[in-house]
Amino acid sequence: MTMKLYCFGESGNAYKVALALTFSGVEWEPEFVDFFGGATRKPEFRAINVMGEVPVLVDGDTTLTQSGVMLDYISSKSGKLGGRSAAERREVLRWLFWDNHKLSTAIGTTRFQMNFVPEAKRSAEVIAFMQARLKSAYKVLDDHLSQRKWVAGEAMTIADLSCCGYLFYPEPFGFDRAAWPHIDAWLTRISTVPGWKAPYDLMPGSPADRV
Amino acid sequence: MTMKLYCFGESGNAYKVALALTFSGVEWEPEFVDFFGGATRKPEFRAINVMGEVPVLVDGDTTLTQSGVMLDYISSKSGKLGGRSAAERREVLRWLFWDNHKLSTAIGTTRFQMNFVPEAKRSAEVIAFMQARLKSAYKVLDDHLSQRKWVAGEAMTIADLSCCGYLFYPEPFGFDRAAWPHIDAWLTRISTVPGWKAPYDLMPGSPADRV
Repeated sequence: MTMKLYCFGESGNAYKVALALTFSGVEWEPEFVDFFGGATRKPEFRAINVMGEVPVLVDGDTTLTQSGVMLDYISSKSGKLGGRSAAERREVLRWLFWDNHKLSTAIGTTRFQMNFVPEAKRSAEVIAFMQARLKSAYKVLDDHLSQRKWVAGEAMTIADLSCCGYLFYPEPFGFDRAAWPHIDAWLTRISTVPGWKAPYDLMPGSPADRV
Repeated sequence: MTMKLYCFGESGNAYKVALALTFSGVEWEPEFVDFFGGATRKPEFRAINVMGEVPVLVDGDTTLTQSGVMLDYISSKSGKLGGRSAAERREVLRWLFWDNHKLSTAIGTTRFQMNFVPEAKRSAEVIAFMQARLKSAYKVLDDHLSQRKWVAGEAMTIADLSCCGYLFYPEPFGFDRAAWPHIDAWLTRISTVPGWKAPYDLMPGSPADRV
């Protein structure tokens, strides 16, 4: 059965899942959610996800929210992109949590402030604060990748897809890819895996549609 | 073998794990980390955890970081505090990710700014921004708990312990417990489980030590 991913192009969390679906060879189709038109605040959407967030993944009778849960589900179901031992699976999970805790949350907030909020409503102080936190996170990831090709284990896993999700977006959020050589090389490694597409090519909706 | 938890009283993420260890009946002992004295920035500590964060859990040859991973490990190993089916386990994991993504990260930042940073270095704008985000998170949790006694499934799980961790701290961070009746009742439910202790009673170190 074809899985359905409720998503929109700008969602880095949806992009992580779209990449996992693509790389694991699962049949899937995107269902566009008009986030910028207020769709996630409507009762119909809250009925699917009380958290009011995109992405949502539907596989038959199973409805999942939170990208980390979906990544784990896709990996378990397909037998791909996961760790090969209990220790590797814990290491994968560790980086999924780290990404949710330290990296993606802060990028999401910063990128939204810098690109999708009316200029009059932006806070330079908040942006500077978040960017300082992000610098610490980039350093942790860059140091980690200086020793290895992939985030966890000896091959690409969902830990890579979680951590890279937001880093492939073109909008500015204070990430200078050239300043982090090990992250840079790792992103190139991921983007040369067959099937890879940039966010706005893999999911419907992009800032270009709203110009 | 006795598990060792590297922790300090102020760490809400360590508190989640200390509660899980206590409630699951695992033998454990705290190892105090002098965070405010700079211990987590030292190379000795980075060697234990490249992420430079507390908590760290050591169980024989296994060293774990990220509270979500530890909660999952404790629950798997003890057979307690986890979901009873694959669907319940996914629901547990969903709330662990949500907590890391939306609740604990923002509380940690806000509480740190309001209580542990010199006043001259505090940003009122950042605090206000984070508190607005937190209000949305409290609402999601309060609405969810209006329908049920526990966050996931029919009994207390690690999802409860993850989400409640920071909410038991006495320092102000913009959480008015009385304003969220379902969260309030749920916190009371947790704190009346035998063995429960407040953060500064369960782990060594507290602001009182540094006055």
